[in-house]
Amino acid sequence: MNQQQLQARAQELRQQYESVFAQKLNLDLTRGKPCSEQLALSDALDGILGNDYRCEDGTDSRNYGGIMGIPEARRFAAAYLGTTPERTMVGGNSSLQFMYQIVTSALYHGVRGAASAWSREAAAAGGKVRFLCPSPGYDRHFAICEALDIEMIPVAMNDEGPDMDQIEALVKADPLIKGIWCVPKYANPDGVVYSAAVVSRMAALGKIAGAHFRILWDNAYAEHHLVDNPPELANILALSEAAGTLDNVYVIGSTSKITHAGAGISFIASSEANLKSLADQLIIATIGPDKVNQLRHMRFLKDMPTLRELMQQHRAILQPKFEALLRELEAGLSGKQVNGAALGEWTVPQGGYFVLFNTQPGLADTVVKLTAAAGVKLTPAGSTWPYRKDPANNNIRLAPSFPSLPEISAAMKVFVLCVELASIERALAQ
Amino acid sequence: MNQQQLQARAQELRQQYESVFAQKLNLDLTRGKPCSEQLALSDALDGILGNDYRCEDGTDSRNYGGIMGIPEARRFAAAYLGTTPERTMVGGNSSLQFMYQIVTSALYHGVRGAASAWSREAAAAGGKVRFLCPSPGYDRHFAICEALDIEMIPVAMNDEGPDMDQIEALVKADPLIKGIWCVPKYANPDGVVYSAAVVSRMAALGKIAGAHFRILWDNAYAEHHLVDNPPELANILALSEAAGTLDNVYVIGSTSKITHAGAGISFIASSEANLKSLADQLIIATIGPDKVNQLRHMRFLKDMPTLRELMQQHRAILQPKFEALLRELEAGLSGKQVNGAALGEWTVPQGGYFVLFNTQPGLADTVVKLTAAAGVKLTPAGSTWPYRKDPANNNIRLAPSFPSLPEISAAMKVFVLCVELASIERALAQ
Repeated sequence: MNQQQLQARAQELRQQYESVFAQKLNLDLTRGKPCSEQLALSDALDGILGNDYRCEDGTDSRNYGGIMGIPEARRFAAAYLGTTPERTMVGGNSSLQFMYQIVTSALYHGVRGAASAWSREAAAAGGKVRFLCPSPGYDRHFAICEALDIEMIPVAMNDEGPDMDQIEALVKADPLIKGIWCVPKYANPDGVVYSAAVVSRMAALGKIAGAHFRILWDNAYAEHHLVDNPPELANILALSEAAGTLDNVYVIGSTSKITHAGAGISFIASSEANLKSLADQLIIATIGPDKVNQLRHMRFLKDMPTLRELMQQHRAILQPKFEALLRELEAGLSGKQVNGAALGEWTVPQGGYFVLFNTQPGLADTVVKLTAAAGVKLTPAGSTWPYRKDPANNNIRLAPSFPSLPEISAAMKVFVLCVELASIERALAQ
Repeated sequence: MNQQQLQARAQELRQQYESVFAQKLNLDLTRGKPCSEQLALSDALDGILGNDYRCEDGTDSRNYGGIMGIPEARRFAAAYLGTTPERTMVGGNSSLQFMYQIVTSALYHGVRGAASAWSREAAAAGGKVRFLCPSPGYDRHFAICEALDIEMIPVAMNDEGPDMDQIEALVKADPLIKGIWCVPKYANPDGVVYSAAVVSRMAALGKIAGAHFRILWDNAYAEHHLVDNPPELANILALSEAAGTLDNVYVIGSTSKITHAGAGISFIASSEANLKSLADQLIIATIGPDKVNQLRHMRFLKDMPTLRELMQQHRAILQPKFEALLRELEAGLSGKQVNGAALGEWTVPQGGYFVLFNTQPGLADTVVKLTAAAGVKLTPAGSTWPYRKDPANNNIRLAPSFPSLPEISAAMKVFVLCVELASIERALAQ
């Protein structure tokens, strides 16, 4: 389009925008929350115990104790995470709490006694504790680092996962890099599944990074497929054991997006020594996990085949939502260009909860503001980056799970309108 | 008794002990755990939702969010703790987790920003952060301090509560004293109920101890009576508000010994500013409390009158157990003397979960070892004191809630035998 055509198109879009604005929409694509229909798939949880509160080993789930979790839940966690029950621990409703406890404790009290405290090592070296953050990534991982004043170093993501050359070079050069956040399957927000080569190099990372380095392998979407033949993720626990680096790895999962989002159970797997250390800390910080809820979950989820059937029901609800979202992107933006460049590009995820949309560089915040003013809430621009600073200012995370199909279509029509409008108005202003 | 009579009695007791020893008993009076009959009083919890997961304000309890707790639970907590819903927060299954979070965060991150961090103030003063610990007290409070390297200063307890003269003098002299642990009603383990005068002086303590001082008021046994006309505990929140010291006080409670011990909900009350600060931390550390379990509890407990009826059912189970325990103490030890002193003294609690027994000075560890060898487990001697160091070595905490009546009687017969045996054998050795 020449300048005149651009102006005409801008005027047209402005008019459309004004009319949307007048509708006072109230739509929300911000968080990866399951919708009511998904939550209802697990409503049998309440009442499933039928007054039988005994665990398989005879433990009374109602009473105190059992910091490692009940035996049937540990066996389930082992199958889910890919290890043995002895290398698992089952917790309460928030896997984030496991991660927070691990990082806090390693920082202040040490992974193996006070002398190994990250903060002590940093103070001795006159530096700061640092974490690697494959970005874009999950804002709540980054929030833990920010709250604990751990410096975050963004690491590039590509189609195979984080850039391992960059990671290996960084940890080799800087002994104060003490951890890395990973969402290895259907990564939040870009949907990437780490390749076997990446997982293998990640498993060996402890040999370069040292004994006190920790990989937080948040496999939050392990079974959350949107396709028939889902990609496989290599087993980092098996690879780490082979590499002699099992102490460097924590694998984390939960039922938050399987049963009831806020009322599920969480799993963690690592070396026996790490789990003992974690249990020793947790025994100070809590009376133990809610074993009744663990038992409920085991009576309901039973085994991996049963869980996978449930995940197919989730998929039946989610897939049309992703399709509706992608359809609007396709219809509204495909083939369109401004300044010789596409108006944006987006992921077509095979699983997980998000579509990542990239605007032309520098436009994400403008688009988010425009849609917000028109009544469509999006995750704040930058929020998928450490310190909320997206260097290219182009990432927008779209989450279609919670709204209804008509709401998704309506919201996405506003979105594509705002993307085009922002792109053209900038071109005109340049 | 003269020396000869003592020797004869010792021989007689030794024989009795040998015959008990041969029985290979396996009895346990260690922990304040509810028994199965008590837990069963709340078995209606599972299934009570009847597929209606909506909170009174329409919130879907199954989904994420709601760090402050659901509205009906906050209203309930306000009635339970003696304040308004705005000054409450409702959490997960462990009130200890609230306490751990408060202490950890104040220590490392400050009660009002990083500059107020206790650790920073201590480092600047070249000293250590310290806590006052009315003793004997609750071992899991002390464990938090020990894990965080907070120095514990034991404070004497008397019939009215902690020695307030001592406390006021200590905090006046030492600005690094940053907190105090209190179980103000039916204190663990001595059963003391703090007098109105003590509560009033405690409420004013912040004026001496400073803005960053915190009272952890763990009212764990608020409604856990064993008598008809239970003593009243003055409302420290109301008194603190009047004194302008509300920021200095956290009042904590839970349903752990009301419904299911390991699967209840926890309450906390403080100033709005403190709760905001706590919520800001918890939002980093967790996805939020299990709202489904909060809703279950509210459908089940309903209101304070309903809760109090339930507590009467607990009392009906517990009171005979306390009576059995006290009966054996009375029968086995009352009126007996060695070296001109009673063989022991014990509390007759009006509520709570414990009887505190004091041996003659220096004999607690011997008695605990003797009973253990005879198959009767007691809480380790010293465990009710900071660093497990009971200076008089005479406190033994007895917990009759979990065992059956015959088990209590059997265990207590062994106990009184061991108390007399230990007392006489020491007298003979002197």
